[in-house]
Amino acid sequence: MAAASPGERLNVAMIGYSFMGRAHAQAWSTVGRHFDLPVQPHMKVVVGRSAEKVEEARAKLGFEEAATDWREVVARDDIDIVDICTPGSSHHEIAIAALEAGKHVLCEKPLANTVEEAQAMADAAEKARVNGVRSMVAFNYRRVPALAHAKQLIEQGVIGDIRHVRAVYLQDWIVDPEFPLVWRLQADLAGSGALGDIGAHIIDLAQHLTGATVEELTGHTHTFVTERPLAEGSDGLSATGSGGTGPVTVDDAALVIARMSDGALATFEASRFATGRKNGLRIELNGSKGSIAFDLERLNELELFTADGTPATEGFRRILVTEGDQPYMEAWWPPGHIIGWEHSFVHEVRDLLVAIAEGKDPQPGFAEGLQVQQVLDAVQSASDQRGWVTVPE
Amino acid sequence: MAAASPGERLNVAMIGYSFMGRAHAQAWSTVGRHFDLPVQPHMKVVVGRSAEKVEEARAKLGFEEAATDWREVVARDDIDIVDICTPGSSHHEIAIAALEAGKHVLCEKPLANTVEEAQAMADAAEKARVNGVRSMVAFNYRRVPALAHAKQLIEQGVIGDIRHVRAVYLQDWIVDPEFPLVWRLQADLAGSGALGDIGAHIIDLAQHLTGATVEELTGHTHTFVTERPLAEGSDGLSATGSGGTGPVTVDDAALVIARMSDGALATFEASRFATGRKNGLRIELNGSKGSIAFDLERLNELELFTADGTPATEGFRRILVTEGDQPYMEAWWPPGHIIGWEHSFVHEVRDLLVAIAEGKDPQPGFAEGLQVQQVLDAVQSASDQRGWVTVPE
Amino acid sequence: MAAASPGERLNVAMIGYSFMGRAHAQAWSTVGRHFDLPVQPHMKVVVGRSAEKVEEARAKLGFEEAATDWREVVARDDIDIVDICTPGSSHHEIAIAALEAGKHVLCEKPLANTVEEAQAMADAAEKARVNGVRSMVAFNYRRVPALAHAKQLIEQGVIGDIRHVRAVYLQDWIVDPEFPLVWRLQADLAGSGALGDIGAHIIDLAQHLTGATVEELTGHTHTFVTERPLAEGSDGLSATGSGGTGPVTVDDAALVIARMSDGALATFEASRFATGRKNGLRIELNGSKGSIAFDLERLNELELFTADGTPATEGFRRILVTEGDQPYMEAWWPPGHIIGWEHSFVHEVRDLLVAIAEGKDPQPGFAEGLQVQQVLDAVQSASDQRGWVTVPE
Amino acid sequence: MAAASPGERLNVAMIGYSFMGRAHAQAWSTVGRHFDLPVQPHMKVVVGRSAEKVEEARAKLGFEEAATDWREVVARDDIDIVDICTPGSSHHEIAIAALEAGKHVLCEKPLANTVEEAQAMADAAEKARVNGVRSMVAFNYRRVPALAHAKQLIEQGVIGDIRHVRAVYLQDWIVDPEFPLVWRLQADLAGSGALGDIGAHIIDLAQHLTGATVEELTGHTHTFVTERPLAEGSDGLSATGSGGTGPVTVDDAALVIARMSDGALATFEASRFATGRKNGLRIELNGSKGSIAFDLERLNELELFTADGTPATEGFRRILVTEGDQPYMEAWWPPGHIIGWEHSFVHEVRDLLVAIAEGKDPQPGFAEGLQVQQVLDAVQSASDQRGWVTVPE
Repeated sequence: MAAASPGERLNVAMIGYSFMGRAHAQAWSTVGRHFDLPVQPHMKVVVGRSAEKVEEARAKLGFEEAATDWREVVARDDIDIVDICTPGSSHHEIAIAALEAGKHVLCEKPLANTVEEAQAMADAAEKARVNGVRSMVAFNYRRVPALAHAKQLIEQGVIGDIRHVRAVYLQDWIVDPEFPLVWRLQADLAGSGALGDIGAHIIDLAQHLTGATVEELTGHTHTFVTERPLAEGSDGLSATGSGGTGPVTVDDAALVIARMSDGALATFEASRFATGRKNGLRIELNGSKGSIAFDLERLNELELFTADGTPATEGFRRILVTEGDQPYMEAWWPPGHIIGWEHSFVHEVRDLLVAIAEGKDPQPGFAEGLQVQQVLDAVQSASDQRGWVTVPE
Repeated sequence: MAAASPGERLNVAMIGYSFMGRAHAQAWSTVGRHFDLPVQPHMKVVVGRSAEKVEEARAKLGFEEAATDWREVVARDDIDIVDICTPGSSHHEIAIAALEAGKHVLCEKPLANTVEEAQAMADAAEKARVNGVRSMVAFNYRRVPALAHAKQLIEQGVIGDIRHVRAVYLQDWIVDPEFPLVWRLQADLAGSGALGDIGAHIIDLAQHLTGATVEELTGHTHTFVTERPLAEGSDGLSATGSGGTGPVTVDDAALVIARMSDGALATFEASRFATGRKNGLRIELNGSKGSIAFDLERLNELELFTADGTPATEGFRRILVTEGDQPYMEAWWPPGHIIGWEHSFVHEVRDLLVAIAEGKDPQPGFAEGLQVQQVLDAVQSASDQRGWVTVPE
Repeated sequence: MAAASPGERLNVAMIGYSFMGRAHAQAWSTVGRHFDLPVQPHMKVVVGRSAEKVEEARAKLGFEEAATDWREVVARDDIDIVDICTPGSSHHEIAIAALEAGKHVLCEKPLANTVEEAQAMADAAEKARVNGVRSMVAFNYRRVPALAHAKQLIEQGVIGDIRHVRAVYLQDWIVDPEFPLVWRLQADLAGSGALGDIGAHIIDLAQHLTGATVEELTGHTHTFVTERPLAEGSDGLSATGSGGTGPVTVDDAALVIARMSDGALATFEASRFATGRKNGLRIELNGSKGSIAFDLERLNELELFTADGTPATEGFRRILVTEGDQPYMEAWWPPGHIIGWEHSFVHEVRDLLVAIAEGKDPQPGFAEGLQVQQVLDAVQSASDQRGWVTVPE
Repeated sequence: MAAASPGERLNVAMIGYSFMGRAHAQAWSTVGRHFDLPVQPHMKVVVGRSAEKVEEARAKLGFEEAATDWREVVARDDIDIVDICTPGSSHHEIAIAALEAGKHVLCEKPLANTVEEAQAMADAAEKARVNGVRSMVAFNYRRVPALAHAKQLIEQGVIGDIRHVRAVYLQDWIVDPEFPLVWRLQADLAGSGALGDIGAHIIDLAQHLTGATVEELTGHTHTFVTERPLAEGSDGLSATGSGGTGPVTVDDAALVIARMSDGALATFEASRFATGRKNGLRIELNGSKGSIAFDLERLNELELFTADGTPATEGFRRILVTEGDQPYMEAWWPPGHIIGWEHSFVHEVRDLLVAIAEGKDPQPGFAEGLQVQQVLDAVQSASDQRGWVTVPE
């Protein structure tokens, strides 16, 4: 597949339509209204297992067609982009089929449930890449404007050499031991728990922002509640229980100490047991010349400290990232008019469409997704071995 | 026009497509993806003065048709809803024509540039109402979930009898004396300056939240920069200058002290000269049993203090208004996944559509818009007379 | 009285030993431990009406002697400084007697209960001044390091020409209608209510920080609870009731809109009915080049915004005012080790002692105290007349 | 030594008069002015190595005598309390001598530079205890009112079973590689770096607040700058350099993951390289029913979240810990009038004096100081061995 022609219409097939699917649909629908796009996405088909439910989703989300067989869909000639919003266990099968069919692929994170699967996906992506097929893993937080802005500032050397990375991702949706055993708590579907679901985000962010990789680490994973009621239905992060109980097979929390390739020390903590913290992704970077801090619950803000030699007026400044000269924000509203969590997906599909149009590889690609998977794997190994583990290069 | 039938498609004609139009278009396009609607809006036609520009807007915003003559459009049989996003000077002519043609009307705030115009509009709305025609003035901040939540808490008596209302709306986009003379700085187009543009919001909010009205007030309006470069083009709150200068004919800032019908004392300040404050709408209400505070730059948060007799553990709590049991939030994302400024418009059109479907009057109606206009008028009178003015009932 | 000799011991007589007296005693006792002083204060005598209670205070606060007749004490040859910590009704009699006896005087704010009294005090101070006698009114917040720092930054032009001053002083200690009728709620003792007690602070601060004066104003004072239980005993801002009730003869809240001599617009609000706000003095100044904000409940912090032409990295910075190069802070602890409310009094007596030693007039003097009294008086007049009042020059 | 008699005067000998000495002196001097004490401390003698400098300190800090030989002083009959404010290397010698001489001992933290020294001190304390001699290690942050309040809330079960402890202590005073090699950077004097200096505080706090102990841990210590200019003079955390350089022999940062005896997971990070963080001790505890968070730079505030089953109004509340019914605060000012860092020392000596008067052991005693030392030791071992280490019971 060659780079798309200017103004060309690209048909999107979205596999899965739950929490992530709804966010992606909103992005595909909205992106053209605010960005000047070189190619136009068309919400062609949404795919799910239940014919009834997927039709309902189609009507709601605004796709043209509904379908139940993803294999058929990814093989269709009129599909240009496959957007994978299913649980991690099916990522590799769908992604590889789509890539082999020559479709551009956007795949939710983490890339896969195991390093082996992720490796196969990265290999498939590399192979397809030669033919102009693009692949991208959906670490959407890179496209939160405040974090994209942070990345630019760090690249410009504003905070100097990084000494510390301190990242937590704290939620509390399963503190109640009666909360049911949804798919995110089952290893065969989700791969891991807090580690892969939210820990993956902060590991990706730390590496993205610093431009360095996690070289070696030690860590600890833990499951506080090991048996839960079986789940009946779930939506996003809420669910209702049914009779009986089953074992929780993923971690509730993961703690990591790491050394990065630039010499920085990093700590990571992901937990679903931090009562009161709803979506508490916080990351702070301390450099030789300054520091940057960010909190996802206030995602329009970036805190910046620069040591400029005048301690009397130094301080962490709260930058409201709603200015036209900050990443992505020219597309939106006047200064001070904040955007939401979902906008990160709009920016993500925008960048994917631009990459497709320009015949370039979008970031992060599957190779980067694989590398994050390797870090996650190293955390689990370190926890099992109670020692330090080197992340493969 | 009778209440709409279930599932009926209602065609929307939007007049104006600039800053406000773009926000409304996003709302019309998004509302059905997240809310279960009794009737479905269809983005039928967008209207503007320049054929070329309105066609560009149509393509971008996703309307079916573009048109240049609003009179023709509001008379069309296939139009159900007229959405007025033009400067205040044209509101009354368009709104009255639309109402007389039996169209439901959503009109941007302030309702009009003068009390006389607002009165005529309210009269027309009342007349049309008898025939089932709905009208609504777009004080969108009532639909920010945190503020809708505040309203509920206040109605439940959580903070007791209101003693103080303290509201500011601070921006800084014209601090630079070289910023050009855009339409918002010209009385014949905008009616007033900070007073009507942003002061109207905090007056409406204060009255809405307390359920009381401003009874009497004194105030002061001021223009810091009285001559500015003529404007060439503008978008939202940014603009570029051209040659020559002209007089600023509106206020830069307005200060008000008021007594409300429930005995509360209120202060209002609206300014475009508050350097560093981008969209700084802050409102605090102190009651006999508690207090509530809100900041639009952190619109997903509500601060609540309740005096429960145990000072040792009392404190202002920061409620993250992203829970499913808070107003409008069931439609969106899991807890902690914040929404943006534009979502208030989604909620606004949702409530309008529901009101139309149910055959009820949406809030706030034109009568409420008129009353806010009377308060604005009283502020200007008080400033001119340097005394207290009673707001007409 | 000439300037004190280096190292000389100056005997202090403190009149009153309640809330303010306890704060002043802490200051006199502490100042020498942290500052290098040109003269040494000695806590010679504390004066009160009840022999028993004043002896108790003496022992507790660390004075050498206790006495019950302030007239005798201020006449003593061995007294150098008279520190007046009584309710406002007795300020003028004590201060004038002390000044006439050639004693340096530190007087709590507001200077007096009426303009007439304040005028007489200022006259007496001016007369005594010729003989080297110093007088100072205790607007202690000028000596909060963050505010002293703000003053310096404003003088350096960091925020440019001031456009807006926005100051509130919010407390909630009398929200409960059963809170007793303490002296602060009685006009004959306190002069006024929130206006003179806490409003005086924000008016002084606004004028001090801007270097401008309030030229004209309009305002409104109000008493929410007009009858209260009689008080039995009180300490600081807490009290216990006894039988019977009496009328509240002072304001519970005062609201002001003002124009300052530099063209800035100002708003002031003082209230004891702001539930949840304990000591909520907040002041914000918006200038042509930047803004400054401060909150007394976080008195070690100063917020500074400077518009430097790079909106992408502009933001309000939180300066932690604990650095050695910030006012008064060299005397205290390493950066980040915060100080408390009481430290403002330490800085106040330090500056008074330095002024005495150097033979200079401390700031603010009685003339400044008088001017604040004139502003307070203008607020009451404006409220009574429901119009604007010009403050005498 | 028996419990002191009511009102008895206890003579204090303070060894060391630098940063910590100055803070302790302020405490000894202030405590009686605000608390009702069962016994009265008298600032008898201050001890230092340089006769000239210690005399200067005596005059400044308000001690009666100055001395240069601590051995003589701790042996004096008229000394009741020995307050050790010297670097860690001399703690054990002084403390043991003082205990053997029958003096009550207050010793700065960490208790000693090695576990062996700490063990000897704990043994000596236990031996002296039989004779009524009290010993206390100065983990002053336990006496910050907000943290004492947190302790009470946790003991009352307000946040339920603790799942996570997350504590950092971040400073930035040695980020500059040219900052000199002060004693705190030399292992022979300071024992360790960030680990023992500030890490000790958060480990003590975590154990104190939860009532649990660190059972096993893994960790990593690191020195970013290994060679620095030799120091000439230092005060608190600032210093000036002289010619030549020397090796930094302590850690700049320490990272820890731990499992506590109550099953909670804990992370600790102590660093002197967190640019912009001046005294950034932050601790958060997540429990099954709520959470608590604290920041030393805002030490008058406590954040509390309680999950009470009504998500719509849940949120972290900011409790201003200045109320009379909160620990220690009855002694100070009205609500909202904040206190400073140094007040924790006032509370510390108050509690020591009460313990002495009542013949009870103050908390934390030397045994607790030893246990913290064992945790610190385990961190260093774990870092050296790159594995998990069990802390001795």
